[in-house]
Amino acid sequence: MKLATLRTGENSTTAALAVGTETYLPLPYSNVGTLLADSGWRKVVKAAVNAAPTGDGAVTASADCLAPLLPTAGKVICCGLNYGDHILEMGRDLPEYPTLFAKYADTLTGATDTIDVYGSERVDWEAELAVVVGSRLFQADESQAQAAIAGYTVANDVSMRDWQNRTLQWFQGKAFDATTPVGPVMLTSDEAGSSFEVKGYVNGELVQSGNTATLVFGPAQLLSYISQFTVLRPGDLVLTGTPGGVGMGMKPPRFLRDGDVLTTEIAGIGSLQNIVHIHQPGASESRTPAAATSTKE
Amino acid sequence: MKLATLRTGENSTTAALAVGTETYLPLPYSNVGTLLADSGWRKVVKAAVNAAPTGDGAVTASADCLAPLLPTAGKVICCGLNYGDHILEMGRDLPEYPTLFAKYADTLTGATDTIDVYGSERVDWEAELAVVVGSRLFQADESQAQAAIAGYTVANDVSMRDWQNRTLQWFQGKAFDATTPVGPVMLTSDEAGSSFEVKGYVNGELVQSGNTATLVFGPAQLLSYISQFTVLRPGDLVLTGTPGGVGMGMKPPRFLRDGDVLTTEIAGIGSLQNIVHIHQPGASESRTPAAATSTKE
Repeated sequence: MKLATLRTGENSTTAALAVGTETYLPLPYSNVGTLLADSGWRKVVKAAVNAAPTGDGAVTASADCLAPLLPTAGKVICCGLNYGDHILEMGRDLPEYPTLFAKYADTLTGATDTIDVYGSERVDWEAELAVVVGSRLFQADESQAQAAIAGYTVANDVSMRDWQNRTLQWFQGKAFDATTPVGPVMLTSDEAGSSFEVKGYVNGELVQSGNTATLVFGPAQLLSYISQFTVLRPGDLVLTGTPGGVGMGMKPPRFLRDGDVLTTEIAGIGSLQNIVHIHQPGASESRTPAAATSTKE
Repeated sequence: MKLATLRTGENSTTAALAVGTETYLPLPYSNVGTLLADSGWRKVVKAAVNAAPTGDGAVTASADCLAPLLPTAGKVICCGLNYGDHILEMGRDLPEYPTLFAKYADTLTGATDTIDVYGSERVDWEAELAVVVGSRLFQADESQAQAAIAGYTVANDVSMRDWQNRTLQWFQGKAFDATTPVGPVMLTSDEAGSSFEVKGYVNGELVQSGNTATLVFGPAQLLSYISQFTVLRPGDLVLTGTPGGVGMGMKPPRFLRDGDVLTTEIAGIGSLQNIVHIHQPGASESRTPAAATSTKE
């Protein structure tokens, strides 16, 4: 099953089950996070499917209706340096422990939303598999962690390298509001294979490609490790790190320019497509409806 | 004015105004965070005072009734390396930018609660002034940030140095659930002076002492800086860093032992007093009511 959070009005959203191309069955929860907070969420989804065997009640929603998948995520915890090839690219050794840092739900944005960046000139990409927590986890072992995975989604840990590298701690370059797209859907764990191909494109050019089979710390291992010190709850999100091919690692380094289109794709889940709008300091510009519309073209 | 969050039952709390030693006037909000979320919170508090000029309705509550001050904090953002003397102690240069990292509300605990630590053998102290956000801030200048400060409180950024130093990113050593005591009260900004004396004690021995006048980045500067990339909301918390005297900086390094009493004091605000319970791996131990009671002696 694939679950999404759809915009239904200016300030309203609904959780929904994807039943076809741009066709969704609305569920009686405001978003995927609040759905997952109901421990009977799998039954809720199945009951909705059974109640609409011929697709009654399904709605058509274009890609620009995709709201941030998990707007209520209490924790968004990211792992850096988790693909062997990316680690070598950054000039580091394979790690004994996962390198973790935090974001907040405010950092997240929708699968086709424009990413507005203010105050950074070194905006870089990091295509990632993200794991959605489906039940409460604390001091869990790996098999408990595996069982607590609700599903998988696509994320891009867009990073402001100038801010990230101002100090030893990456947080400030990783937590710009509404800069980490997540979605378009969460693929439930029961339908997921054991690994995913993660690809990142800039203006259609493939810049990143990796397979999560090569992760140093896999999804269950990460959730188990994190749960040793902090509780994870339904709707929390863990980003698993990015494969080689980030702009900072190129020679010379390459960063996103205003208007670039960032595409992040995981076969079997879906893809994010986000225009990056880099606002120049002092420029008298604003987001116009036209510009917002153009992100979906 | 001094505001607190009091335990009123096993799972219930109330915001309250401190009106005397262990005497509080309850306010119609579940905690200080939800109170601050009401933009008219100053008027609410004054109306409660005016309605009870002779102390009618005030209740007596001992120190062990102090619940985590801001259990609903959406963001808890910390600055490291912010006192000149601590920076030199750690062998680093004075910074151009604040070093920031994140915690979650789960990391917080009450002013007299036992701090239970599982899985760390290098538990260290960091006495700090914490700033409570009182109104929404985004891309604010320093004067706007100053005006948005609701008040000040005492915190101890208790740090698991073994986990903190496992990787380049400190987060995992800083985000153990229920290990950062905050309180006992928030002193409103209108009654605060321009600087505070921050002191930390272990078993009554003074180990840290600093004055926030020597902060490299002061409260308003930190809030303004953070607001450039992420919105701050009422009830969010910013920890301003710790002065010299942490255990890791001692020769030889010194860490907390099971049963140590950590006292964190800021004159004019109040003090935290927390017993530290370091759980050995595999030990068949549990928190007993007796142990919990002893933390208040």
